[in-house]
Amino acid sequence: MDKFLKNVTDYKLIENGDKVFACVSGGADSIFMLNKLYDLKKSLSYDLFVLHFNHKLRDEADSDEAFVRDRCKELGLEFYSSSALVGYYAKENKISEEEAGRHLRYKFFYEMAAADAKIALAHNRDDQAETVLQRIIRGSGLDGLVGMGFKKGRIIRPILNFSRKEIEDYLSENGLSYVIDKTNLLPIYGRNKIRLRVLPMLEDLNPQVKDALVRLSENAREDVRFLDAYCLKRYEILLDAEGLDTSEFLKEDPNIQRRIIKLYLSDIFKIKEGFYKIHYNLILKFIKEDGLGSLDLPAGLELVKSYKHFYFSKKKSEKNFDFEEIFLKNGFNKTDLGNFIIEEKNGTPSKESIFIDKDKISGDLRLRTRKIGDKFSPLGLCGSKKLKDFFIDKKIPREARNKWPLICDEKKIVWVVGLSISDRVKLDKKSKNILNIRRDYERKH
Amino acid sequence: MDKFLKNVTDYKLIENGDKVFACVSGGADSIFMLNKLYDLKKSLSYDLFVLHFNHKLRDEADSDEAFVRDRCKELGLEFYSSSALVGYYAKENKISEEEAGRHLRYKFFYEMAAADAKIALAHNRDDQAETVLQRIIRGSGLDGLVGMGFKKGRIIRPILNFSRKEIEDYLSENGLSYVIDKTNLLPIYGRNKIRLRVLPMLEDLNPQVKDALVRLSENAREDVRFLDAYCLKRYEILLDAEGLDTSEFLKEDPNIQRRIIKLYLSDIFKIKEGFYKIHYNLILKFIKEDGLGSLDLPAGLELVKSYKHFYFSKKKSEKNFDFEEIFLKNGFNKTDLGNFIIEEKNGTPSKESIFIDKDKISGDLRLRTRKIGDKFSPLGLCGSKKLKDFFIDKKIPREARNKWPLICDEKKIVWVVGLSISDRVKLDKKSKNILNIRRDYERKH
Repeated sequence: MDKFLKNVTDYKLIENGDKVFACVSGGADSIFMLNKLYDLKKSLSYDLFVLHFNHKLRDEADSDEAFVRDRCKELGLEFYSSSALVGYYAKENKISEEEAGRHLRYKFFYEMAAADAKIALAHNRDDQAETVLQRIIRGSGLDGLVGMGFKKGRIIRPILNFSRKEIEDYLSENGLSYVIDKTNLLPIYGRNKIRLRVLPMLEDLNPQVKDALVRLSENAREDVRFLDAYCLKRYEILLDAEGLDTSEFLKEDPNIQRRIIKLYLSDIFKIKEGFYKIHYNLILKFIKEDGLGSLDLPAGLELVKSYKHFYFSKKKSEKNFDFEEIFLKNGFNKTDLGNFIIEEKNGTPSKESIFIDKDKISGDLRLRTRKIGDKFSPLGLCGSKKLKDFFIDKKIPREARNKWPLICDEKKIVWVVGLSISDRVKLDKKSKNILNIRRDYERKH
Repeated sequence: MDKFLKNVTDYKLIENGDKVFACVSGGADSIFMLNKLYDLKKSLSYDLFVLHFNHKLRDEADSDEAFVRDRCKELGLEFYSSSALVGYYAKENKISEEEAGRHLRYKFFYEMAAADAKIALAHNRDDQAETVLQRIIRGSGLDGLVGMGFKKGRIIRPILNFSRKEIEDYLSENGLSYVIDKTNLLPIYGRNKIRLRVLPMLEDLNPQVKDALVRLSENAREDVRFLDAYCLKRYEILLDAEGLDTSEFLKEDPNIQRRIIKLYLSDIFKIKEGFYKIHYNLILKFIKEDGLGSLDLPAGLELVKSYKHFYFSKKKSEKNFDFEEIFLKNGFNKTDLGNFIIEEKNGTPSKESIFIDKDKISGDLRLRTRKIGDKFSPLGLCGSKKLKDFFIDKKIPREARNKWPLICDEKKIVWVVGLSISDRVKLDKKSKNILNIRRDYERKH
């Protein structure tokens, strides 16, 4: 069977009566996908529409759009395009043009495609290899190695197992033309750097390194699927009206325990972000230790241990919350927003323990919650953005934002606790006096 | 507790009454380890000896040895050294000096350490990150990501979670000197290239990339431990006097099936090498399909399917085996050494399907088993080595070597099937006519 058709069938990507919106930039990948989707209409009865987002970033942007529009006219397909000032949006939101383009593009795709329609993206096998490598570099466990999927929600990726070479060969054999995105050839963006600098160096060591990365992701996908299914089964067995059975839970391996906690938080509280390894470790440690009590957690949750069970619940104190700014002293600070330790020392930073240049602090350190108009410069960013937008970027739920601890000096925010320090106070080669601030999780009985 | 002592205790690396041979090159890592091991004698009663292998590759080799000897004299420790002409051994065996050094060094360590003694190696956290990255680049599943362990057989690695920086800081704080291996600074070897070229480039993208790699390996270790334990339990349940229960086996996920097969082969036949993904896929496909019969496998094994079970066994035909050289024709060739297909076409090579330059072949292709004096140039090697040594390198069991299929032309070996093609016939930029030779696994009823 044709490989494309096999993908469509095996992964149930498109079925009779479906509406599919193909996102087509005009490059080789999306022109290939468009052609294959068009051919598919011979064997499947479904509606195909084409979306094109004009980034207006390059001289050729408008001629690219015209190219895709003409191609759709030839094929008799409905064509929709939109554009936005990506460069302006990037500057306004202090994000890279790459990120801004992705935001705006996906926004357009989701707005255009009907709620029951599918959105077809032209990611290929090479993109998958890059994604996996990028996640390894950024830091990932097994779950991140899975990479992109053929199908996720409304998104379908019908050419995910075609290599760029297969695609180019097909296009040249079939005399199909496409546009070339020159920004893909500049090693400016993170992703381009991986494609144009890192991967070629790795190919020197192993010419088949892309295959190796894709196979790693396929293996990871199978292992994750098994682990998730196993944990779901265990979760359902362990859960009763009083929570999870502690002694049965503790018989599982720590990695399985962590997965079960994730499932619990996502099942009952729909929480998929904001919990890091440190939180899972705290949770597991707390469950394992003798004694009853509760543990404060992010997102307004607490973990409660009863005689034989443990469960998560919304913190009671969250209902009426009003926190007055307080000064922080060196050493241990116990506050209603958590406990903080301040010391002069150096070490390895983490989400919950930061190291900053003491000489860049003006006046005393203080702890408060957000105020209207707060601005913040996350690490790695020149210039500042609205704290509100920063919270949105980090997917912090609205109800958690008002209670989020902020450590400030007399000028501005120093640390949005657990998320990022201010670029202004980061260590550099000239730093002499180093200050460590860390959150301490104390047990409440 | 002291981090080193915690490692020793948590991983049960050294216990009262143990004999430990510390392998000390004189570099920062091994001098640090030696010092920590020496201090440990205050809290544990055990015997510590020092081994030093002199590679004789650099001008400083002898002064390095003297440095370690002197240090041992100061500490009152028994010191043993050995040397070998690594460069000569590398040339003789057509392997890199890096590989030759490792062979000879480990040979010395294993020979010197008594059978009940432990061998302490000074791999650190940075080495672990490099190992994981190297495996990702070479191609690996979850199991390879696990990296090195604190303890494996007689080997212990007590400083595996110390970063190079921690080690250097400790040495300078304690005024301990060490030697510098200048070959570690040259990006000549594969490993040095990863350390000196690849990792710095990745650190540009994420300064904490080494942490990310180590954490990935820790996560992988936990997941693999769980998966192996799960599979062992399933294997023991599924195994009875007639083999494994086919219908129960098929209820497992494919990745679990593969792990169970691996366990089976390693449990009953002690086979840990020579089976690749293609073989596992063939095995799983054969088990899944309807019908009885048997499937030929590497290492003189066959898979037999009975009515409700399947099992592996030594091939009967293996007992008396005599194979006469035969010529191979284009197309399908059915032989007692397996079936081979020869076609003129290009594609992606694998262990079982090769692509070579047809114009580099002299005369007809033929199939035979090994002859006394056979020589071979594995891909990537200039010059040739003894086929026997090549088999040894590849860990092919003695009894399998006489039946190993070799595809040759009128001059020499072209392909040691499933292991490597000859460097002489590889594709290059000038290749015009490409020949594909692949092994075909056919079902026997």
